[in-house]
Amino acid sequence: MSGYQDEEQTQKAFGWAATDSSGFLSPFHFTRRANGDEDITMKILCCGICHSDLHMTKNEHGFTRYPLVPGHEIVGVVTQVGCKVEKFKVGDKAAVGCAIGSCGKCNSCQDDLENYCPEMISTYTFFEPEEIINYGGYSDIFVVNEHFAVRFPDNLSPKGGAPLLCAGITVYSPMKYYGLSEAGKHLGVVGLGGLGHIAVKFAKSFGMKVTVISTSPSKKEEAIHQLGANSFLVSHDAEQMKAAVGTMDGIVDTVSVPHSLNSLIDLLKRDGKLVMLGAPDLEKPVELSVMPLLLGRKLIGGSITGGMKETQEMMDFAGKHNITAAVEVISMDYVNTAMERLAKGDVRYRFVIDIQNSFTTAY
Amino acid sequence: MSGYQDEEQTQKAFGWAATDSSGFLSPFHFTRRANGDEDITMKILCCGICHSDLHMTKNEHGFTRYPLVPGHEIVGVVTQVGCKVEKFKVGDKAAVGCAIGSCGKCNSCQDDLENYCPEMISTYTFFEPEEIINYGGYSDIFVVNEHFAVRFPDNLSPKGGAPLLCAGITVYSPMKYYGLSEAGKHLGVVGLGGLGHIAVKFAKSFGMKVTVISTSPSKKEEAIHQLGANSFLVSHDAEQMKAAVGTMDGIVDTVSVPHSLNSLIDLLKRDGKLVMLGAPDLEKPVELSVMPLLLGRKLIGGSITGGMKETQEMMDFAGKHNITAAVEVISMDYVNTAMERLAKGDVRYRFVIDIQNSFTTAY
Repeated sequence: MSGYQDEEQTQKAFGWAATDSSGFLSPFHFTRRANGDEDITMKILCCGICHSDLHMTKNEHGFTRYPLVPGHEIVGVVTQVGCKVEKFKVGDKAAVGCAIGSCGKCNSCQDDLENYCPEMISTYTFFEPEEIINYGGYSDIFVVNEHFAVRFPDNLSPKGGAPLLCAGITVYSPMKYYGLSEAGKHLGVVGLGGLGHIAVKFAKSFGMKVTVISTSPSKKEEAIHQLGANSFLVSHDAEQMKAAVGTMDGIVDTVSVPHSLNSLIDLLKRDGKLVMLGAPDLEKPVELSVMPLLLGRKLIGGSITGGMKETQEMMDFAGKHNITAAVEVISMDYVNTAMERLAKGDVRYRFVIDIQNSFTTAY
Repeated sequence: MSGYQDEEQTQKAFGWAATDSSGFLSPFHFTRRANGDEDITMKILCCGICHSDLHMTKNEHGFTRYPLVPGHEIVGVVTQVGCKVEKFKVGDKAAVGCAIGSCGKCNSCQDDLENYCPEMISTYTFFEPEEIINYGGYSDIFVVNEHFAVRFPDNLSPKGGAPLLCAGITVYSPMKYYGLSEAGKHLGVVGLGGLGHIAVKFAKSFGMKVTVISTSPSKKEEAIHQLGANSFLVSHDAEQMKAAVGTMDGIVDTVSVPHSLNSLIDLLKRDGKLVMLGAPDLEKPVELSVMPLLLGRKLIGGSITGGMKETQEMMDFAGKHNITAAVEVISMDYVNTAMERLAKGDVRYRFVIDIQNSFTTAY
């Protein structure tokens, strides 16, 4: 289950890479490992652009190694299978998310939560022990241990489905873990972006009542009429927020920029749960009032992506309920413009690169 | 279930009251209501001194009305029962904790969580709707709706058992609710005082591994040898704290003075739970780093006391496992000195007033 092997780097690959902290992406030739016994090789059809791709290309976390080929919302078609592969055959659709390896031995791996394994290997970035750079999905082919690929439902559009591999599981997993997936419960969704809009879709499919909480009044129309949210709160409208105090069973907070948690905790009923999916405190800690947690037996929790078993469960659920992300499909050569627009929040709600049709021309 | 009735104030009572924010307690004659149909009247045997009694006598929360008779860890013997009383007969031991009434209709009341009812009536203090002052247990008799009294196990010492009515249920309830009562799990207990030492006793009875976390190295000996904790961490010893990172399933934090939550969160395993039972931020919010919650799917929750059903369950558990608080028994006329000592943390671990023997002399 290690996700990396001693195979030689024999498969020629092509993608777009950032080569410095400008984050500018340009064509890049590289190699991927030969297909190992437990590996599948995929021809990539499309790849979503996650906000973390933007952070990584610009080295905003400080640990990017260049050249960097981003991309961890990957859907493709299987072109090779190793002799020990059980889940896939050539021609199947497969998908890869944020992880391509883990230790396989720790408690988290044993609990099907590879995403919390201390040795989890990210889909792209530098991997210390072997000094290997992993190249992501803004590329033509991908090689991965089958454990870290999921079956992609035939009835879903690969382009609409690609963002489920990161944004989708990132909201689905905590909704399940924190008991916020029961019909009839009232869920608040903070932030209507890549994660938030999928959270609304899952919550509605679970039969929940959904309120979107946003800084942008302009998103009310789309939240309610396009995504099916039941109501909408403008977070800086004190009157609206006050009227909603004590009404929600849980809140998933997808916003990474600093904002007040106390006003969100006030929206919760007794036993309510505020689940943080972004970290609004990367530069300085947030301020938290503890007393409201005591008085309402409320909690603040966190979650990050999901394990492979649950990712498959989420994909199957999405297939059954026909849930895809709302995407703007772009060609590879638009990616730098897309990154600029993403930085400004100018996308409804996820860019997806149409790899298949971008790379028909030989470079 | 309202806990207050239109009965006339016909029962003569005697206790000790604070009459101003000096908090100084002195003898005080007053009346209690006639025993109603659902009421029991108790002759009080003993009453624990909770830290909140100290806050209230000195009006530290700003809403104390005087005269104030404190006391909400009450054990007594039933002397009268109303015609509708089902749980008690004359001569039974009964006990009263923090609440003597609630609305009986809200979700929390329906869920046996009267402690979270917005209209919960505290055992002592001013009660708005009827402008009635409720007098607490530093007194000779008590009248209460039987719903808000629990049966007190015959095998337990009333003096050792009295603190269970507040300190006991305050730690027992969150351990149950947050899944921190399973044999084999590792619990951290922050603060070895009235609440903390009972948390250690419950946790050991549940079959847990217990680590006490304290600012006072001097408490190691008692934590381990008297209370049976498995280990002890000095919270300002960076090396000890580092060695314990990622080892605990949960932590109950009983400390109300400002302290770092981040270093406690670091002690938790994946899915670990930090449960706040005090509010270290009454004057200013605490600082919290959110990212560790995401990376380990950890949570910070709160809890305050417990409902009547669970209080009875806790008392029965304490009876079965012979769990009592470690107490220093005092006479009523020592109460002002005890309050001074409590303010300095000079008690192992709870003062209990021997009401029965303090009031044998007629005043």
